[in-house]
Parts: sequence; C-alpha cells; structure tokens
Amino acid sequence: MAYDDSNVFARILRGELPCIKVFEDDHTLAFLDIMPQSDGHTLVLPKEPAVTLLDLSPEGATACILTTRRVAAAVQRAVGAPGLLISQFNGEAAGQTVPHVHFHIIPRFPGLKLKAHGRERGDPDRLDQIAARITGELASAR
Amino acid sequence: MAYDDSNVFARILRGELPCIKVFEDDHTLAFLDIMPQSDGHTLVLPKEPAVTLLDLSPEGATACILTTRRVAAAVQRAVGAPGLLISQFNGEAAGQTVPHVHFHIIPRFPGLKLKAHGRERGDPDRLDQIAARITGELASAR
Repeated sequence: MAYDDSNVFARILRGELPCIKVFEDDHTLAFLDIMPQSDGHTLVLPKEPAVTLLDLSPEGATACILTTRRVAAAVQRAVGAPGLLISQFNGEAAGQTVPHVHFHIIPRFPGLKLKAHGRERGDPDRLDQIAARITGELASAR
Repeated sequence: MAYDDSNVFARILRGELPCIKVFEDDHTLAFLDIMPQSDGHTLVLPKEPAVTLLDLSPEGATACILTTRRVAAAVQRAVGAPGLLISQFNGEAAGQTVPHVHFHIIPRFPGLKLKAHGRERGDPDRLDQIAARITGELASAR
C-alpha cells in the first residue's frame, strides 16, 4: 500500500505534532497512546515509512520488536501489570486506524477489561505520571 | 518466570506431539492453530525456551518477528485476507494459555468477527487445505 506521509504518526515523527515520548533511538519511537485501553498503553513505531508489518523492511521489523521488548519490560514494572498484550493491526479490516505500522503494548490486569481501541482520551496528568515512571524504569534498566 | 518444558509447544518442538507445520528454520517454527479464530490462524514460536517475550533473548525476538512477517505475507495471500492481526499474550492476565512465547497471525475480513481464542476445533481437512496453500505461497515467495 502506498504510504501517505500526512498521517498523524508521520507528523509526530517529523515533530509537527507532540507526543508523550518514553523512548527513542535511531530507528524507533515509543510514546503513550493518548486514548489508552489500560494504564501504560504504549505505542512503538519505526521511523521507516511503512503502512503495515508486511511493508516494513526486515531491519525495521527487527528494530520494532527489540524496542517493543525493551519498552514492554519497563511498562510492566512501571504499572505493575501481571500481563502484557502486544498487538499489531495491519489493514482497516484488522482495525488499523493510523496508516503507519505500530505495535501496541497494553498492560493487562486480572478481571480488568480493556477499554475500546482509540475511543476515550486519557487524563493528561495521569499520562504524564505514567510516562515518567516508564522513562525512570528504562533509565534504571540500562 | 521458570520455563516448564512439559508444555504443549515444548512437546511439539521436540516432535512428541504433531502439528500442522507451515514453516521451520533454525530458530523458529510456524504451524496452524488447531482452534483457529479465523481461517489461516497461524502460530509462530521460537525454539528457544522462554515463557514470554520479556524472557526471550533479543536474537529469539528478532527471529520470531522475521518469521512472523514472512509467514504473515504468505497467510494473507493464501486466504485472501484484507487485514491481519498480529498478537502476542504475555502472562495469564493477558490471556496466555501455553507458557511458551508465541505470536498469533490472525487473518481479518470485513464484517467477520473472530471466534473465541482456543475454544472450537477447526475441521481437519480444511486446516490441511489451508496449510497447503500457505506452504505453496511460502515456496513461491522464495
């Protein structure tokens, strides 16, 4: 699928829109989902322009899973989640809402259902507090 | 978490239990989920013994995502799915049912809801037909 560089994640990657960043390296960026399905819901995306995982280069896919693994460990400690769902939607039929490939890191807690995908905006102060805890965990894991 | 090598995927990896294999290399194995949530539902797992993505080595995680990407492209062509969900459950609280890390490749079709996870056994003949189509697509992609 042709890549549309006006999508919201492309604009975040170019610095035209803000994000609540928790991690960045040469190939990936991770930030909080501002409509979290649970506390600590984080997105990981490659800097490489690609719509789906199938469009992404092997190097881009590798960078994404390594950042996902690293950030997921920090998210888990930051919010004390016993479970973590990693999910990745390719194509509208799969629920993809932004046409730039991304991985969801979604903490799961026993008996706590997930909120709907991309529906309800999180409290800004709470998001900032959680982001600070995640970046703290990432710093102490180095 | 300590790895229990009596789990069903460890037994499949040792050849003690059968599976409907679609791909194997030095580090990963991919086979059909026998309780598919949709036609073409495939699992990718590392040969490395690890319970969750966080327990898996960076090399194991890399091997998994590269096999997932490659097999997902073949699954998509084999079943003509416009969407693909990639998901990965870590911990019982996240819905993990087998304690050996694995990635789900789940084809999505517009208007078609997914069946429940690990609930209803697929028709054996249909599973074999789908596996043959996936291995055919993998062979022609080489």
